[in-house]
Amino acid sequence: GEPVRDPRLIVQGETPFNAEPEGGLLVRSQFTPNELFYVRNHMPVPVITEGEYRLEVVGLDGDCLASLSLDELKTQFKRYTVAATVQCAGNRRNELNEVKKVRGGSWELGAISNAEWAGARLSDVIEYALEKGRGGGTQRKAGHVCFEGLDKDAGSGSVYAASIPMDVVERVPDVLLAYEMNGEVLPRDHGYPVRAIVPGVVGARCVKWLGKVVLSEDESTSHWQRQDYRSFSPDTDWDTVDFSKAPSIQEMPVVSAICAHDVDEAKGIISVSGYAWSGDGKGIIRVDVSGDGGQTWQGAVLREKGERKRNQNYDWTLWDAELEIPKEGEQVVLVCKAIDSSYNTQPERVESIWNLRGLLNNAWHRVEVKAE
Amino acid sequence: GEPVRDPRLIVQGETPFNAEPEGGLLVRSQFTPNELFYVRNHMPVPVITEGEYRLEVVGLDGDCLASLSLDELKTQFKRYTVAATVQCAGNRRNELNEVKKVRGGSWELGAISNAEWAGARLSDVIEYALEKGRGGGTQRKAGHVCFEGLDKDAGSGSVYAASIPMDVVERVPDVLLAYEMNGEVLPRDHGYPVRAIVPGVVGARCVKWLGKVVLSEDESTSHWQRQDYRSFSPDTDWDTVDFSKAPSIQEMPVVSAICAHDVDEAKGIISVSGYAWSGDGKGIIRVDVSGDGGQTWQGAVLREKGERKRNQNYDWTLWDAELEIPKEGEQVVLVCKAIDSSYNTQPERVESIWNLRGLLNNAWHRVEVKAE
Ligand SMILES: [Mo]
Ligand SMILES: [Mo]
Repeated sequence: GEPVRDPRLIVQGETPFNAEPEGGLLVRSQFTPNELFYVRNHMPVPVITEGEYRLEVVGLDGDCLASLSLDELKTQFKRYTVAATVQCAGNRRNELNEVKKVRGGSWELGAISNAEWAGARLSDVIEYALEKGRGGGTQRKAGHVCFEGLDKDAGSGSVYAASIPMDVVERVPDVLLAYEMNGEVLPRDHGYPVRAIVPGVVGARCVKWLGKVVLSEDESTSHWQRQDYRSFSPDTDWDTVDFSKAPSIQEMPVVSAICAHDVDEAKGIISVSGYAWSGDGKGIIRVDVSGDGGQTWQGAVLREKGERKRNQNYDWTLWDAELEIPKEGEQVVLVCKAIDSSYNTQPERVESIWNLRGLLNNAWHRVEVKAE
Repeated sequence: GEPVRDPRLIVQGETPFNAEPEGGLLVRSQFTPNELFYVRNHMPVPVITEGEYRLEVVGLDGDCLASLSLDELKTQFKRYTVAATVQCAGNRRNELNEVKKVRGGSWELGAISNAEWAGARLSDVIEYALEKGRGGGTQRKAGHVCFEGLDKDAGSGSVYAASIPMDVVERVPDVLLAYEMNGEVLPRDHGYPVRAIVPGVVGARCVKWLGKVVLSEDESTSHWQRQDYRSFSPDTDWDTVDFSKAPSIQEMPVVSAICAHDVDEAKGIISVSGYAWSGDGKGIIRVDVSGDGGQTWQGAVLREKGERKRNQNYDWTLWDAELEIPKEGEQVVLVCKAIDSSYNTQPERVESIWNLRGLLNNAWHRVEVKAE
């Protein structure tokens, strides 16, 4: 059956189970506690025992090159750690629904969380499997790495699957086959015993309950790779959409959100906190916060998070700001926007990035503060 | 003296010489003809003869590790080519000036051009110099590569200089010491005999008339590295700006512009063409075009440009669109915005990205079409 969950998670869907923490819980610490980490499942959580678990690595010709037990994965490959934020492509979908109805489950701003992951490097495991399978030299020719989960649809028997282009494996050193999350055994809701962690890339590719790693000339043929998790212009509707015309979402755009605010009438200030993140290892260089709907801005204070390499800065930046309470009668509309190390920034309005599946909402985040 | 220039260049400044082509000339071909390529000089063009030219490579301890003639650079190192767009950080500055005055030279939308460059790889030259200078192994420890030009300020005698972080050299294979541009000898206005080409990175780091490559723990101490070419929030003014608080611009954000449009009353259509580009090797996946100021959008047709590797897609994408002429009396406001492979897109208004130096204007580009 399903695991026991923390009652503080806001349940957005029961089957499959989807849930997110309230924003206020996200900004309490750099790393999200495992029990509060957002859960995005596509199927029921599979029951897997360590004894029967095997990770199969399949080569270009369809042969099984290696079949690894959890113990082998842990002991035969060097253990690496990476601090990486995982975000659902549908995070903040509800704001898009307010413009025009989209298809997809509800998400407020909490379908994003941050953890330190530990595991074997995917590139090490692929290299080992190729050598073992005497397929050496074919890695370069594989255009994609497909991930297949052990979570199954009860009816069709099909498993969750997705893929990443091989260039991501070459560009991002710590694409991990992770078996630890924040120093603990990977929880069942997060893929026990092994999940893919692809830093800087959308959560949909970070396949949980990982059963197979398949080298392939082409992208995964799964529904989620080919007919979903791609974005389109606002004028594209369900009659005109052609999923083959947009690339699958991999690295993600710059995002930020206001997670908590607190009005101190006595001091005349509003304290505001939130997160900011960008894909492909881009660090956050600045967060601008406004109390008047985006007319004027001030810089937020970015919290220290330890050293990260330039362009390998995969986990979010939490931030805080103190805004003056405006004069009597003026409506307070909090807004934030982040700037990443490429000086990319967020689009202003959800209308301009609306898309029929409600993905990748990285518009300025707005919160209307109710008068006392 | 200064070279003879094509009369079609729009001169934005005589000393130093700054000039750009009209948009219509930019969209004629994937590669900008050398004589139309925008020119951004910071000093008078130096007179350099092949005989006296030397490229010096200086190590961390200040020793000259290697001194290469042009012939040695051409014959002792493998020749690589890369298609790469170069853009001035101040491109489209004039639109920012309309919001509020900024400091910096005038630029319309043409301070960007595209060429195929050929030269030696910077990483090969550094490796050679380190081995020759018996400084092997120190490359990893150098945090930055500084470039010094041979162009001199007549008064102070100081040369143009800038630097890139070493991680760029590791991430981008074809950071070139270029001696050819579109199959021709590098023209004097573009750095004869050798310039740095850093694909995906701002033009200010692509130092022309390259005299020295200096390995360094820190960024270049030049004015252009430390007190310029950084961007700030709209609320930062000359009284409050602290250049140490923003990182130097390296990889650039996603941009696009409408370069030409043509109204065909008989057919009832407006043909629109432009460019789109993003830094750090991000390809352009879509360009949205509007004829009504951004209320409705249609996808532009992206021109074919030959194969580019994912995330190593360094040259621009030209595009075309045909819009229906709206009903009698409706004002036509053309708008474009581009989306790159990380699904980053452009901010809507120049007001939200205004900055005191007038840099990195990547707001939606708008053109009001005058009624006949
Ligand atoms: Mo997702
Ligand atoms: Mo520039």
